[in-house]
Amino acid sequence: MGDERQICTVERTLDVIGDRWTVLILRDAFYGVRRFHEFVEDLGIARNVLTDRLKRLVEHGVLERQRYEDRPPRDEYRLTPKGKELLPVLLTLMRWGDRWTIDGEPEVAFRHEPCGQVVEAAVVCDHCGQQLARRDLRLIGPSPLDRMPRRIGAS
Amino acid sequence: MGDERQICTVERTLDVIGDRWTVLILRDAFYGVRRFHEFVEDLGIARNVLTDRLKRLVEHGVLERQRYEDRPPRDEYRLTPKGKELLPVLLTLMRWGDRWTIDGEPEVAFRHEPCGQVVEAAVVCDHCGQQLARRDLRLIGPSPLDRMPRRIGAS
Repeated sequence: MGDERQICTVERTLDVIGDRWTVLILRDAFYGVRRFHEFVEDLGIARNVLTDRLKRLVEHGVLERQRYEDRPPRDEYRLTPKGKELLPVLLTLMRWGDRWTIDGEPEVAFRHEPCGQVVEAAVVCDHCGQQLARRDLRLIGPSPLDRMPRRIGAS
Repeated sequence: MGDERQICTVERTLDVIGDRWTVLILRDAFYGVRRFHEFVEDLGIARNVLTDRLKRLVEHGVLERQRYEDRPPRDEYRLTPKGKELLPVLLTLMRWGDRWTIDGEPEVAFRHEPCGQVVEAAVVCDHCGQQLARRDLRLIGPSPLDRMPRRIGAS
């Protein structure tokens, strides 16, 4: 906030989830993992690192703590509405990984219940429904290249 | 590869781009930044870190080097087809950031030329076109929770 360089909301998003463990914690949360020991077991993450990342996600309002046992007191971590809206990020990461990081079929996939097909997440324009391609996008606002016009033949 | 734990392509994707600097380099590449000194200037990234991240992205086939000057020899970095397919990841990160990390309008946005509207990226099922919601997705394949059934009242 107030950092003049940080005009881009991609960068602000990375402030919240721009850490490998954080993304894996969120992936597990979407799979229904909620409890501290479950995250430890599934991810093989060090307990102090997990404590830190969960704390940050709660502070950012992406996860919320909910008491599930009183004696001893134990909380679980659930996605908030803000957290649930990270699903598209996870799905696009997964789609790219399915296409470019393995040979053959992925071991994990989702079925889209309304149509019965295996999900392939596509990113479209919310207004016209057309799939988004780079050539169709025009930047509005300051671009890195505006700030440093290319010195032709000199750079 | 061959790591039994790593069944998920989200995790494999993070092997390639799961680093804050890497995501920012890719964002700049989508904006048209190609040259070493341009990345340094825009990101304020240390030269040795940039060298390392560019090298990894070239090794992973996400960027490719192209000579643009012979004397002295200078290369620029361009997105490959594999790299260009990361656009949906960037657009979903940006959409979430626009909605949850700032008040008011974002300073940077894209216009979708075919329809003339400011882009809001939506993630849909490639088969039926419906927007993807968590409640409509059923996991196929091993889930973290299958491996550790919840011990009711005991965990």
